[in-house]
Amino acid sequence: MNIQQLFGIELPIIQAPMAGVQTSAMAIAVSNAGGLGSLPCAMLTPDGLRTELRAIAAQTTRPYNVNFFCHQPTEPDPVREAKWRAALAPYYAEFGIDPATVPAGGGRAPFSAEVAGLIAEFKPPVLSFHFGLPPPALLARVKGWGAKVISSATTVEEARWLEAHGVDAVIAQGVEAGGHRGIFLSDDLSTQLGTMALLPQVVRAVKVPVIAAGGIADRDGVVAALALGAAGVQLGTSFMLCAEATISPMHRAALQSRRAEHTTLTNVFTGRPARGMYNRLMKELGALSDAAPAFPFATAALAPLKAAAEKLGHDDFSTLWSGQNATGCRAIPAADLLRSLVPA
Amino acid sequence: MNIQQLFGIELPIIQAPMAGVQTSAMAIAVSNAGGLGSLPCAMLTPDGLRTELRAIAAQTTRPYNVNFFCHQPTEPDPVREAKWRAALAPYYAEFGIDPATVPAGGGRAPFSAEVAGLIAEFKPPVLSFHFGLPPPALLARVKGWGAKVISSATTVEEARWLEAHGVDAVIAQGVEAGGHRGIFLSDDLSTQLGTMALLPQVVRAVKVPVIAAGGIADRDGVVAALALGAAGVQLGTSFMLCAEATISPMHRAALQSRRAEHTTLTNVFTGRPARGMYNRLMKELGALSDAAPAFPFATAALAPLKAAAEKLGHDDFSTLWSGQNATGCRAIPAADLLRSLVPA
Repeated sequence: MNIQQLFGIELPIIQAPMAGVQTSAMAIAVSNAGGLGSLPCAMLTPDGLRTELRAIAAQTTRPYNVNFFCHQPTEPDPVREAKWRAALAPYYAEFGIDPATVPAGGGRAPFSAEVAGLIAEFKPPVLSFHFGLPPPALLARVKGWGAKVISSATTVEEARWLEAHGVDAVIAQGVEAGGHRGIFLSDDLSTQLGTMALLPQVVRAVKVPVIAAGGIADRDGVVAALALGAAGVQLGTSFMLCAEATISPMHRAALQSRRAEHTTLTNVFTGRPARGMYNRLMKELGALSDAAPAFPFATAALAPLKAAAEKLGHDDFSTLWSGQNATGCRAIPAADLLRSLVPA
Repeated sequence: MNIQQLFGIELPIIQAPMAGVQTSAMAIAVSNAGGLGSLPCAMLTPDGLRTELRAIAAQTTRPYNVNFFCHQPTEPDPVREAKWRAALAPYYAEFGIDPATVPAGGGRAPFSAEVAGLIAEFKPPVLSFHFGLPPPALLARVKGWGAKVISSATTVEEARWLEAHGVDAVIAQGVEAGGHRGIFLSDDLSTQLGTMALLPQVVRAVKVPVIAAGGIADRDGVVAALALGAAGVQLGTSFMLCAEATISPMHRAALQSRRAEHTTLTNVFTGRPARGMYNRLMKELGALSDAAPAFPFATAALAPLKAAAEKLGHDDFSTLWSGQNATGCRAIPAADLLRSLVPA
């Protein structure tokens, strides 16, 4: 079964959910053009989520995807928070920021009963999860209204786990992919595979359809992924310069520069490994740093540094998420980009 | 231009050179079947090299490839050697080995004028290099007898460098690939890209033909690589169980087990990063360890530990090179495997 049949869409393409870079406008454009548009929900407030879902309901009758994180929520650890503050102390000094004024906190809540209640009236046709799956009861509730559920696997073992726990399709997320790694059964990044190796092994390991993600930037990439057995393809980075994107001017400029050739997995922005363009914070702390607290507690302490540096025109503390192949980015409407991806 | 035209072969497939796993027998079998067979030369003595080249000359009239390393040779550093010995001390104690009896040394010499002189009489049709290229005068000498020269790029920048320095084709070696990374312009492993991202970017960046390597295990993988613009494909891991392979029984067994699902880049076996199946030495020292000396000086100190552990049936100190996709391994003649890879 391909994803056109699974989701009731025309084209084998999912626009990847990208928090901070796009809103409902891109999801709507992609869904209306025959792909599966995605709304990243992990950073939305309840009101924000409701507003976005209303916008989608008003502007498309086609299937769309809402994406949530489902990490195990943890309490902030004062010891790790102190270590993180100590690592950032020279930067606070550099920008004249009083660390005592910097709030702690996270800002990314996992999918919950409250959220399920909020979205129930909209009955989103597809839900995608990152970092595993929500607890069984919550998953059952979502599936009860007929939603298709998908999630990312970064290893063959994770793909088997997701299938055993009831997903309708697995996203095989190769190490090339931008943003957060979906990794959830391990924290050992040496387990992460490139798409060329991961995808065919996942296709062989599970019976549900497999969606390819990571490093795919254009029609040739889509053709290659389908040749490897993918039932569909998810692309993120290629959509980041589209007319509907809400990407920052700095992030946009970096993507259009040679800097896009060097992305790195880093935990310093959120506490979990994610791929973005190499910048000062990664360089100076180490892209994978023991100083970073648990997800999502790295973010709050960085916020004033990000703001101060950006005011000066520097992206030293900004998240510049990108996959390893930014060559497919085009500053055109998302619908046009989508159509350019479809195999002849 | 595809590699059939470039090398004068029938099929778009190179059998990757794999030191320790294959000899001239596999190269001969692959070349005679219409692919490009490869002889790994980095660990051969001058006499061994001559013997192997004579075997090839006697058994095939088809083009073949000889592979050499071309790292900058360095002198052993006594401080780093001492650090390495200290890291291994508990293992020497465990196996009752007197460290004083363990010789230092490397065992992998770079391509040199002496080697060029030795192989000149054979005029190998193709030379592939790893870790960059030999000095210009040596390269000119090789090209003077009509050999095609290729080398591995692990980044777009390395591909541009290789083209500027005169290669006839670039191997785009994705991070999925087994054995030594070809990386030579940097030692930052965060620069390493998956094949799905690296290949199309290299194809776009250089004018010479691009050979895809890394994660490709079967005909579908070959089709995918060609769709991404590859002029040909190089596979290593898939050939490792072939009838002509000289792989150790332990290595063979590991490849056929679930262990093949977890490979890691490690520097503990040679001093340079290479991909192999995860084992005890990687786990206990860390797969990428500051204790490892410069390439190739890690090897000698490990040799008695490898021998002692293997005698007890353990591969704790053995190199178990493998790419990230071992699903294409088949215990059949290399010629049959080769034919199974060719797109319809």
